Amino acid sequence: MSALFGKPLSVANVGLSSFADAIAGAGAPVARIDWAPSGGTPQSALAVAQLMTDPAVDAANRKAFDAYLSADPVLEGVGIAREVLPGMGERMLLHSGPPITWEAMGGAMQGAVIGACLLEGWAREAESARAMAAAGEIVFDPCHHHAAVGPMAGITSPSMPVWMLRNRTQGNVSFSNLNEGMGKVLRYGAHSPEVLERLRWMGTTLGPVLTAALRQLGLIELKPLMARALHMGDEMHNRNVAATGLLYKRIVAGALRSDRPVPDIAAALDFMNGNDFFFLNVGMAACKGMLDAAHGVPRSTMVTTMARNGTEFGIRVSGAGDRWFTTSAPVVSGLFFAGYGRGDAGRDIGDSAITETAGIGGFAMAAAPAIVQFVGGTPREALGNSQRMAHITLGRNNAFTLPMLDFAGTPAGIDVCRVVDTGIEPIINTGIAHREAGVGQIGAGITHAPMACFTQALAVLAQ
Amino acid sequence: MSALFGKPLSVANVGLSSFADAIAGAGAPVARIDWAPSGGTPQSALAVAQLMTDPAVDAANRKAFDAYLSADPVLEGVGIAREVLPGMGERMLLHSGPPITWEAMGGAMQGAVIGACLLEGWAREAESARAMAAAGEIVFDPCHHHAAVGPMAGITSPSMPVWMLRNRTQGNVSFSNLNEGMGKVLRYGAHSPEVLERLRWMGTTLGPVLTAALRQLGLIELKPLMARALHMGDEMHNRNVAATGLLYKRIVAGALRSDRPVPDIAAALDFMNGNDFFFLNVGMAACKGMLDAAHGVPRSTMVTTMARNGTEFGIRVSGAGDRWFTTSAPVVSGLFFAGYGRGDAGRDIGDSAITETAGIGGFAMAAAPAIVQFVGGTPREALGNSQRMAHITLGRNNAFTLPMLDFAGTPAGIDVCRVVDTGIEPIINTGIAHREAGVGQIGAGITHAPMACFTQALAVLAQ
Repeated sequence: MSALFGKPLSVANVGLSSFADAIAGAGAPVARIDWAPSGGTPQSALAVAQLMTDPAVDAANRKAFDAYLSADPVLEGVGIAREVLPGMGERMLLHSGPPITWEAMGGAMQGAVIGACLLEGWAREAESARAMAAAGEIVFDPCHHHAAVGPMAGITSPSMPVWMLRNRTQGNVSFSNLNEGMGKVLRYGAHSPEVLERLRWMGTTLGPVLTAALRQLGLIELKPLMARALHMGDEMHNRNVAATGLLYKRIVAGALRSDRPVPDIAAALDFMNGNDFFFLNVGMAACKGMLDAAHGVPRSTMVTTMARNGTEFGIRVSGAGDRWFTTSAPVVSGLFFAGYGRGDAGRDIGDSAITETAGIGGFAMAAAPAIVQFVGGTPREALGNSQRMAHITLGRNNAFTLPMLDFAGTPAGIDVCRVVDTGIEPIINTGIAHREAGVGQIGAGITHAPMACFTQALAVLAQ
Repeated sequence: MSALFGKPLSVANVGLSSFADAIAGAGAPVARIDWAPSGGTPQSALAVAQLMTDPAVDAANRKAFDAYLSADPVLEGVGIAREVLPGMGERMLLHSGPPITWEAMGGAMQGAVIGACLLEGWAREAESARAMAAAGEIVFDPCHHHAAVGPMAGITSPSMPVWMLRNRTQGNVSFSNLNEGMGKVLRYGAHSPEVLERLRWMGTTLGPVLTAALRQLGLIELKPLMARALHMGDEMHNRNVAATGLLYKRIVAGALRSDRPVPDIAAALDFMNGNDFFFLNVGMAACKGMLDAAHGVPRSTMVTTMARNGTEFGIRVSGAGDRWFTTSAPVVSGLFFAGYGRGDAGRDIGDSAITETAGIGGFAMAAAPAIVQFVGGTPREALGNSQRMAHITLGRNNAFTLPMLDFAGTPAGIDVCRVVDTGIEPIINTGIAHREAGVGQIGAGITHAPMACFTQALAVLAQ
């Protein structure tokens, strides 16, 4: 020790600055590294220590993570929600995020509910739709309880066409509604006549063309397509232009060999062509399929759902059954479209955080430097986001590689323990809806899954 | 000075290591920076000094570079070479690179000539085609002399369909043949029956579908499409998957509204769908159009052509008229397909270096980290390549931005003086053809434009 102090010292101080101050005061150079404990309670620190050293938890996590890794979701077709969604009722509307009542819904989700009532013919105008919903005449249930996911409000009604996926490894199915494009759309709470007209056209024309095209094509393997899109600058949450193009090429080939009229085919293809988010819902359903495969492993601390209903943020964990761990959903800071600002923003909403849960979206931002023009930040920060998320995941998914990080797999398998232990909240790239019904998207940005969901889950898992 | 030497010194030694050795020998720390002069002659150093300090040269370069920047190439249609290519003769074959005789051609180009003679019906079998070529019965002329470009052998015969582009700013037209796909193809010297069959189908079916589709669409602006592809991981020389997808989406929309039979449309779209290099020739013609706009400015030292015929590498310079400056084409090191190695490789070939000349391809590698799996190197080196090329260019093209370099424009406008002054040869991402006729592509890699072309050009420019 005396020999050590006889030499010039290179001092790095981690955490509390008072130690560094003392060294600096004595005239020596000191590098200051910002660090603080996670802010968990003594109980949570104990729970983390207990779970992370338990071989049974480790084995359970490996089992859950391997199930996620080995899942092989394929696109099988397009069906009608009432006919194909497990447990879908006649007067039922599925919504994004954890369970919620009509009264607790924010503007965007209430607006979408109104639109769905009009679309289904349950009501003739918005006011009677509101009255129906308030009177309890509609059953609301999370998409996630029906093997489904939906972006933003996620409202899925019985007559809507839905993507049908099957995980060829574990056999589970998954579903998502079809993406309507940007601007005034149901998922952002708009329900004006042109929104309903588009939804009707999606049922009468787009759905049948996709169904017929997919019948010609057989199964479409989704993981290779998604892996390719990551190499083409998509992160597949807020940037889906490459994945949409890759899916489009397949659909064209099938549609032209189908029995659908050429004008219908042309209209359907034009619609896909004009909507660079068209793949989002397919990718979300693929993520849902991979994560459902990992769900239900006793003792596993792996997160299998992150979802928001515009009021609450909720997570579910493989080893904690169907229980949701919820807290208030954050208001997202980001880049707002001209004329809008943070005061106009609704709370974080949508099942689309299933992408981050599966290791893409914000976790794969290193693949998508150009997205910073849409969600904010710099390309360097985008790389850093993917690197930082590796601290809270069980491993990497080598089926999805990130070229700029020397083709490392995307970090995947969020671990409740690691989130609480490091204090690092999972990053989410997201769209921002207006707080009031009927307006639509007003921006996009980067947000985080709130720590409170993870500390709650940890407490239950530790019991 | 004495005050300076009284303080601890931070010494960086650039170049000759003997200076650093002396400092290190005296016990002081020294950072060594590897550097050597460009290896030019005293004459070339003088010529560089003379030209780079001449205000008239500077003005000429600004004029040429601005013409390149302001060029606005649009895709107008598809025509037949004999009908639309300026100066195209009936028994003429266009080829890549600088002028060359039959005897001097390498295997790939001779093979492609044989294939073109068979396609045109000038000969019934390979041997009589060879005899015709050797007897001088065919006129060989560079694509570049006809406002055209062609990848690899670049052989363009009178009956072939060609892309037709117009630069809306300066009015010049440019052309390229259509991409045949990978594997056994004419441009790599293959001329077997399936190669000729495909070329005939391209004339009878693909060309007419593209012509009809483009008639429905009107002009397609190419710079925005190319800019978008750069944000999707293409560098548009050896990676064209995104640009092909973006063009494909446009063609689909036009084709479905055209009068062509649906089976022809489906076959044409399938062909595009199966060929991720389909955009390459369009992009090359766009680059040709931008660079021809910059050509012919007296005193300008800006390079407007880099091209190889499989035997010689040649460049042309804006201020040096139509003169080619040539030297022996290098053999490319790279990643070889299974079963092949460097001994099988022909010399560097093709007009496709027009992409690097226009600031994309190797110059835009920072946009395409995934390409290192095809041409070699690491993602970090890919970034470095784009950064290094900025040392030899007149500026940056802000129409083409590189996300990973904080959206800097791609370096463009290669300057003969800067190349000789720095000793940095322009980088080229390229495919590798087999040295013998009829085999095809055997790999891909990164090569450089030989310095000898630039020192020759410099000597002429300085006169």
